[in-house]
Amino acid sequence: MALSSWNDGHAKLAILDFVAKVTLKGGAHFVPPADRIAVFDNDGTLWCEQPQQVQFFFGHDRLVALAGHDASLRQRQPFKAYLENDLKTMHALGKKGLFEVAAAAHAGMTEAAFDKLARTWLANSRHPTLGVPFPELHYRPQVELLAYLRDHGFKSFIVSGGGLDLMRAFCEEVYGIPRERVIGSSVKTRLDQHGELVKLPELGSFNDREEKVVNIGLHIGRRPILAFGNSDGDLAMLRYTKAGKRPNLALLLHHDDGAREFAYDRDFHLSPLTETLDRCVEYGITLVSMRRDWRKVFEPAVPLAVPGAIPARA
Amino acid sequence: MALSSWNDGHAKLAILDFVAKVTLKGGAHFVPPADRIAVFDNDGTLWCEQPQQVQFFFGHDRLVALAGHDASLRQRQPFKAYLENDLKTMHALGKKGLFEVAAAAHAGMTEAAFDKLARTWLANSRHPTLGVPFPELHYRPQVELLAYLRDHGFKSFIVSGGGLDLMRAFCEEVYGIPRERVIGSSVKTRLDQHGELVKLPELGSFNDREEKVVNIGLHIGRRPILAFGNSDGDLAMLRYTKAGKRPNLALLLHHDDGAREFAYDRDFHLSPLTETLDRCVEYGITLVSMRRDWRKVFEPAVPLAVPGAIPARA
Repeated sequence: MALSSWNDGHAKLAILDFVAKVTLKGGAHFVPPADRIAVFDNDGTLWCEQPQQVQFFFGHDRLVALAGHDASLRQRQPFKAYLENDLKTMHALGKKGLFEVAAAAHAGMTEAAFDKLARTWLANSRHPTLGVPFPELHYRPQVELLAYLRDHGFKSFIVSGGGLDLMRAFCEEVYGIPRERVIGSSVKTRLDQHGELVKLPELGSFNDREEKVVNIGLHIGRRPILAFGNSDGDLAMLRYTKAGKRPNLALLLHHDDGAREFAYDRDFHLSPLTETLDRCVEYGITLVSMRRDWRKVFEPAVPLAVPGAIPARA
Repeated sequence: MALSSWNDGHAKLAILDFVAKVTLKGGAHFVPPADRIAVFDNDGTLWCEQPQQVQFFFGHDRLVALAGHDASLRQRQPFKAYLENDLKTMHALGKKGLFEVAAAAHAGMTEAAFDKLARTWLANSRHPTLGVPFPELHYRPQVELLAYLRDHGFKSFIVSGGGLDLMRAFCEEVYGIPRERVIGSSVKTRLDQHGELVKLPELGSFNDREEKVVNIGLHIGRRPILAFGNSDGDLAMLRYTKAGKRPNLALLLHHDDGAREFAYDRDFHLSPLTETLDRCVEYGITLVSMRRDWRKVFEPAVPLAVPGAIPARA
């Protein structure tokens, strides 16, 4: 049964109707397979982003390892804030500032070394309050949706502010999305004398807001007909999708389920949901309520501890 | 019959052997489909690049149209050189300088308007000496190779110094390569208030030499196992492919067929073939001779006029 983790309701119906419409050969709204492009934000859309985006736990653990070799990092900002989970200072850096810290932490690594580090970390780290490996915190209904779209000739891309190569380390196994269909924030690289790409400490693209659309143009070169996001960082991409001449569907996940996941929107400092929530009807964006529209969130279910700040690490 | 436009010989055998080896399930050299990434240069590798790369004919015609509205372009360098086919001045600008002129000529266009312009131009323009539309000047053996690779589970990408969006206007129809698998030189864009991406006059990436490898990392995120090029601009990509731990094949097309196409290598100022030709044995790159290895070049055959400089346009 398609989308069995979705409750029958407005959102599921909108998806089923849309897919039926664009795949009906000879129908007025038919879209050829080559143009069935779908884009998904990652953090908070495909997997859990609370109490911080996974990216930052990864960066934190990397800085702890680096500080073992260079204790001065513990005294230097912005690394000090990162290492001490000083949320106030971290929030002041914003998403982009935090990404730049993470970029600095991985400078000099080859792509192969980074991939190994990321895979090892993803396999061995645990969410601080939920206690399970991060990849298990993907949303079951979304993985079903990705499979459903694939079965109907869609090509789905991740378009996320998260680090490109961290996502590539799990996107195939968890989402069934190949590495070449991931667009994320990235650092510049250079080719070294051994034929390896090496990460530089310099930001390449910070893939947020309008930059998401710019990167869709660069990497995909087609306007999506389906977009799914969960924060104001996704609004430009949702509206870009809605502005197309073909049939289209823009979906917004609302985290309104404190019992099974986390309930937040305007108050999530790092990635708030305000304008998109206030104006989704006006913009033609379909609201998805985690509480009402999802029969399951995680599979297997994750027993929720009390959400809170990042606990101190050993 | 696979690769029927290829003559039996060293190059064809290397391709057939390689594909058989990496697709043999349970074999020592098996490569899973997800990792069967192939990269192809475009100009001079997939289609004809003489007497100038097609990109420059396109830019020239655009400048002629613009000069109709703004005659001062005819007096200002570098546009003057472009408009007068002043090859000496154009060559002094180099590939990158010429691409920047083309970028300036398309600034302010939306992606949709550019796509329409490019498709119209490709359908209506003719090669100055061969007299046929440019898309007909693709190489028949390469289109067969692309299909052969596709049939064996490969994903092929174009990785070219040519303009990204010009290639996207014909890559699907001519090569069977979808738009999202094209990596090229690009300009920056911005999202306008109508939800359209608009080209800026600023260079984004000039996709040549080491930058090709950097962009393979950014756009694909996997090391290719097959690469095909024809100039020193492709050397970094060929060597990056050869430096992989998996079985791999790097191919270099040598334009040594003045009777059916054009004979050139070191002397093609815009995109010379020198180091790669001298050291292809040392680097483990398989040389493909157009004269010996290709049974056909164009299909239908194109009657060759005398190759020469770009003729003056009306």
